[in-house]
Amino acid sequence: MNVAILGVGTVGSEVANILIENKKLISARSGVKIVPLIGVVRNLNKQRNCKIPLSDDLNSVIDRNDIDVFVELMGGVEQPYRIINRILKKQKAVVTANKALLAYHRYSLQSLAGNTPFGFEASVAGGIPIIKALREGLSANKILKITGIMNGTSNYILTNMAQNGENFDIVLKKAQDLGYAEADPAFDIGGFDAAHKLLILASIAYGVHGNPEDILIEGIENITQEDIYFAKEFEFVIKLLTIAKRIDDENVELRVHPALVPQDKMLANVGGVMNAVSVYGDCVGETLFYGPGAGGKATASAVISDLIDIARGTKSPMLGYKMQNEIHQMKLLPACEIMTKYYLRLKVEDKKGVLAKITNIMSENNISIDSFLQKPKAKEESDVTLFFTTHTSFEKDIQNVIEILNTQSYLKQKVAMIRIEE
Amino acid sequence: MNVAILGVGTVGSEVANILIENKKLISARSGVKIVPLIGVVRNLNKQRNCKIPLSDDLNSVIDRNDIDVFVELMGGVEQPYRIINRILKKQKAVVTANKALLAYHRYSLQSLAGNTPFGFEASVAGGIPIIKALREGLSANKILKITGIMNGTSNYILTNMAQNGENFDIVLKKAQDLGYAEADPAFDIGGFDAAHKLLILASIAYGVHGNPEDILIEGIENITQEDIYFAKEFEFVIKLLTIAKRIDDENVELRVHPALVPQDKMLANVGGVMNAVSVYGDCVGETLFYGPGAGGKATASAVISDLIDIARGTKSPMLGYKMQNEIHQMKLLPACEIMTKYYLRLKVEDKKGVLAKITNIMSENNISIDSFLQKPKAKEESDVTLFFTTHTSFEKDIQNVIEILNTQSYLKQKVAMIRIEE
Repeated sequence: MNVAILGVGTVGSEVANILIENKKLISARSGVKIVPLIGVVRNLNKQRNCKIPLSDDLNSVIDRNDIDVFVELMGGVEQPYRIINRILKKQKAVVTANKALLAYHRYSLQSLAGNTPFGFEASVAGGIPIIKALREGLSANKILKITGIMNGTSNYILTNMAQNGENFDIVLKKAQDLGYAEADPAFDIGGFDAAHKLLILASIAYGVHGNPEDILIEGIENITQEDIYFAKEFEFVIKLLTIAKRIDDENVELRVHPALVPQDKMLANVGGVMNAVSVYGDCVGETLFYGPGAGGKATASAVISDLIDIARGTKSPMLGYKMQNEIHQMKLLPACEIMTKYYLRLKVEDKKGVLAKITNIMSENNISIDSFLQKPKAKEESDVTLFFTTHTSFEKDIQNVIEILNTQSYLKQKVAMIRIEE
Repeated sequence: MNVAILGVGTVGSEVANILIENKKLISARSGVKIVPLIGVVRNLNKQRNCKIPLSDDLNSVIDRNDIDVFVELMGGVEQPYRIINRILKKQKAVVTANKALLAYHRYSLQSLAGNTPFGFEASVAGGIPIIKALREGLSANKILKITGIMNGTSNYILTNMAQNGENFDIVLKKAQDLGYAEADPAFDIGGFDAAHKLLILASIAYGVHGNPEDILIEGIENITQEDIYFAKEFEFVIKLLTIAKRIDDENVELRVHPALVPQDKMLANVGGVMNAVSVYGDCVGETLFYGPGAGGKATASAVISDLIDIARGTKSPMLGYKMQNEIHQMKLLPACEIMTKYYLRLKVEDKKGVLAKITNIMSENNISIDSFLQKPKAKEESDVTLFFTTHTSFEKDIQNVIEILNTQSYLKQKVAMIRIEE
C-alpha cells in the first residue's frame, strides 16, 4: 500500500519515519507493506528529519496512479478541502489530522467519500484512539455525555497556575517559551481548538450538525488565582472542558468553557499538556481515555493506525451512522437553555447590607445559592471578595443575574462566572 | 445477522436486552439488523430478565443453519472449548467473554478460526475497549509496557483498606456482602483472574505464548494496615497490578502482584471496583483506558461491539499478528530475572545492633537501600517495625535476602515484600 504524505512537518516526518522504523511490526499487523512513497512540501530546500523522496509539485503527486492513500497534513481549511475533494473523486483513500477542516466540512466530505476510506483519528486528542472508541468500542451505547480535556496548552496553563500560584500571563509566557503555546495563543486558550474537536466527536456520537459559531465557547483568559483559591477550598480543580450531553432523543448540548471539576474525578487528575476524554454510555457507564493530545510522534501514531485500518479493509462508517435516515437527526440545544451549577466571584465594597442586596437579586431571579465563602481580606483593602455556588440553574437566568449585578454601584469589578461540572 | 446466546445469565440477558432496546441505533451503526434469535440455558424454569426465546438443547441450537454468530457466555474452560471448536469448524463466527478459556486456548482457537471472526473484547476489563485499543488504535506502536488494574474485587478491597483503615478480612467480608467478591474469593484476590487477562493482552501486544502457570502471580492477601501506613507516608498507593513489559526484541516480562504506585500517577486514582490499563507505546507515549471492569451491562457493551464489528466485516487479526513468521517470537523472561524496586517490612526485636545486621545482610547480597523508615512504637510493644525501599534490584537477589532474613533470630515475623512500580 503506497502512501503520499502531503505536508512533511513535525507530524508528517514522524509518519514517514515510523512507517520505516516499525516496518516489520506494521506489515505483520496490517497484512501488507505500507510504503511512504513520497512527501509533498512547499520548500524543498528546508532541512527535514525525514528519509523519503520529496516533491514540491502537489498536483502531479495527486495525479499519480501508484498512490493508494493520501495523508493530508498541510493545515488550513479551504485548500486541503479542495485537494481532498479531488482525491476522493478519484476514489483514493484519505487520512487527515486536520480538525479545522472537519469542524466545517465533515458532512460534505462524508457524502463525497461514500465507501472510500477516510480516516481522521489524529484530528482529535492526538495519540488517544478516542474516535475508534466512540465509533467502534462503545458502538452498542447511547452516548449520554462526553467530557473532554482536549487542549494541551490550556491544561498546561491551568495546571501550572494551580501548582505554582502564578498568574495567567506569567504561565502563558512560560508555555510559549517551552513551545506549548503559539505566539498567537487565542485559538488554544480561547477554546476554539477544543471546540473543533468537540464537533467531530459529537458528529460520531450523535450525528449532530453544527459549526464552531453555533456553540457556546469560552476560554480560560479570565481565570485568576482567586478562582483557584476558591477551587482548592471547596475541593475542585479548574479545567477547560469540552462537553457534549444528550438531553433527550431530540437535543444535544455542546459547549466549551472552563469548569470546576471535583478533585476526586479522574479528569481532575489530568495534568500538564495531557488530554483525556470521559465518555458515559447507557450500557457501559463511565469510561475514560487518557494520553498525549499533541506532538509529532503521538499524532503520527494515530495517523498510522488509520493507515493500518485501511490496509485491513476496516469499514466502519465515517461519522458513526451508516443508515442516517433511521436515526432521528439530533438538534443543538440553544445555549440559553443549558442547565448546570455555577460559581460566581464578586468583588464588592465592604459595606453593610451589600450581601443581602446580592442574595435578594439572586433569589428574585431564580438563582438559588448552594454555598458561600467570603475571603478574609487584608487590612488595607476596602473591597471584599465574595464567592457563591448555585444549585442547578438555567444559563439564561444566570446571565440575567450577572447583567443585573454588573450594574450595581457596590460592584468593583464585573462578576466572574465559572460553570461547575459534577 | 442472527445471534444465539449460549448462557443467559447476568451478561447474556443484558446482551439480549440491549440488542432489543438500542436496536435502531445498533442497526444504524452496523448497517444490518442484529437479532438475538435464541438463548441457550441449562434450566428453563429459572426466572430471567430477558425477552428472547430460550432453549435447553445446546446441540440442536449449534446445528441450526440460521445462526450467524454464537455468543459464548457459559463459563468454564473445557466445555466451551469443545463447543467453540464445533462452531468454528462450521465457519460460524464466535464472540466470547471467557478469559479463562482464552488464557489456555487462545492460540489453538486462533489457528482454528482462521478468517472466521472471533471476538473477545469482553474478556478483558469488561466495558473498556482495551483489546481494540491495543490491536487497532495503537497498532503503529511497539508496545513498551502495559500496566493494568484489572481485578475489581481486589481494587475495591485495597481502596477501602486505604480509605477506612480497616483490615483485609473485614473489607473482604464487606465486599462479599455487597456482591463484589465471590464466596470463594481466591481467584480474584490471589491475582489469577488478572493473570488471565494479562496473558490475553500480552498475546495481542507481543504474540507471546504462555499459560497462567508460567508467570509470577501474587495476591493481596498479605497486605496490612502497616503497608498502607508506609505507602501514605511515602506518597504511594497500593494496587494489584498486571504488568507486561518489553525487555528487548527477544524478551517480555509478565507478572501480577500488589505494587506501590506513586500517588500522582493516573493509575493511583483508579478507585473502588473500577479498572484501568496504562499502555506505553514507542510512538504514542503513555495512554490510559479506564472504565468498569465487570457488570452485566458493561460487559454486554463489549460483547455487542464485537457483534457490530462482525456485522461491519472488520478483519483485524485475532491476536494482533497476521504474518506470525515475520515477527520474532518473543519469549517469557524467567521470574528470577525481573528487575524492579522493592519495599520490605520487617518486624524485629527492639535491640541494639539489629538494624546494622539487617543492612549488612542486604549490602552483602546486592541489595542497596533507597529509603528507610522506623515506625514510632507504642510503649508496651517490645518489637519494632522497619520499612525499607531498595534501588532497582534483581528479583533473585531480593528473594535471596528475604530467605536469609527469615532465618535470623531477631525477626518476629516473616519479611513482607511489595514491589514498587514507578
